[in-house]
Amino acid sequence: MGDIFGRNPVLEALKSKRTINKIWLAKGEQKGSVHEILALAKEQKITVQSVERSKLDKMFPHENHQGVAASVASADYVDWQDIVHAAKAKGEDPLLVILDELEDPHNLGAILRSVDAVGAHGVIIPKRRAVPLTDGVAKASAGAIEHVPVARVGNIVQVIGELKKQGIWVAGASMHGQYMHKQDLTGPLAIVIGSEGKGLGKLVSESCDYIVSIPMEGKINSLNASVAAGVLLYEAYRQRKAGN
Amino acid sequence: MGDIFGRNPVLEALKSKRTINKIWLAKGEQKGSVHEILALAKEQKITVQSVERSKLDKMFPHENHQGVAASVASADYVDWQDIVHAAKAKGEDPLLVILDELEDPHNLGAILRSVDAVGAHGVIIPKRRAVPLTDGVAKASAGAIEHVPVARVGNIVQVIGELKKQGIWVAGASMHGQYMHKQDLTGPLAIVIGSEGKGLGKLVSESCDYIVSIPMEGKINSLNASVAAGVLLYEAYRQRKAGN
Repeated sequence: MGDIFGRNPVLEALKSKRTINKIWLAKGEQKGSVHEILALAKEQKITVQSVERSKLDKMFPHENHQGVAASVASADYVDWQDIVHAAKAKGEDPLLVILDELEDPHNLGAILRSVDAVGAHGVIIPKRRAVPLTDGVAKASAGAIEHVPVARVGNIVQVIGELKKQGIWVAGASMHGQYMHKQDLTGPLAIVIGSEGKGLGKLVSESCDYIVSIPMEGKINSLNASVAAGVLLYEAYRQRKAGN
Repeated sequence: MGDIFGRNPVLEALKSKRTINKIWLAKGEQKGSVHEILALAKEQKITVQSVERSKLDKMFPHENHQGVAASVASADYVDWQDIVHAAKAKGEDPLLVILDELEDPHNLGAILRSVDAVGAHGVIIPKRRAVPLTDGVAKASAGAIEHVPVARVGNIVQVIGELKKQGIWVAGASMHGQYMHKQDLTGPLAIVIGSEGKGLGKLVSESCDYIVSIPMEGKINSLNASVAAGVLLYEAYRQRKAGN
């Protein structure tokens, strides 16, 4: 079980019908989306406990809880195969993101938002040396964690091999590859994003079908990891839509 | 004066010839980019003080200093007019980002990286209710803060009016506008990004020439602010390159 906090995350948890044990609401909170939260909680027969704001400050000392929190079942991980199957069942070419040892919960949360936004099908993360689905990720995802399937795997390189066998192209994001605007990103595709400090691991990089690069015209040689993922996802999105 | 920390920020400060008073290096740090840092410091006659790692931990308790820090002149703000003039002097159509009350230093740092990466000319931020150029921004920018001119202005709406008078199109990033792939983003352009929580302010939004939207196909209605800025900047970049 885990706690989520902030208006959007609580609202999204209610809308997605996740198991919610209880909602905490700071006394005096009545504005804006609180009405919607209360209505959905009543409809779903979920207890709403009125508490002093200081209690929420103690529960989430480093976070902006916006006066609302909920105790929910932690986000469930899925099997990576299910992400592929779900895409195919919808008649869509799978579009996945693989994160190679991403460490920052803000980045993972932001990537979940982008994955949801372009209608991609899911995210694969490694079990070790990577940020899991924490409360901080939930908050940074602005609710996207409720909608984006995430698979946790023991061996990224092995899963890349399996994806390739299933006809999914695997594109590693790194320097010195084909520029994204000249690379065909339509069809079944998994985009691999490296860690914040080190980029793509050598083995992971070598196991990709090809390297795709974001043009860099300035003095710095890399983007923030979540920005890089977003830019590549939207280029894949643009190419897919242009083909329709 | 301010302190910067982390290998990339210190290296970029050295490369850009910013005034550095002193460099602190944790004892035993000798790997990778430390060699380059030492060579540049010697060349520029900058004192390198060897310290216990625990001293750096105390100086930067919440940050990953990577064993290296430097005392430097704080990043200087520029006049916004200078950003426009510098672009024109290079014979380029100005491409700017205006940030309307952005609060998160990670987001500002990530945006500076993207601005550098697409070769845009600078960033305009408000003096009030917005994160300034802090040490946290410098770290998140991975050195881009050394290369991207940032102007701080008292009144964003007034500056937007001035930019329009100078023939620069001002595009507010928000929902319900023209999708970015169908909107002409070539020519002199300033992209306005709203705050993390509230998006574009009403007055700011109304003062823009038009609203540009990033397509959102999922359940969540906004991207992380730095991802949104990066996606829009790279679409503007793509269109400019396509026209050449």
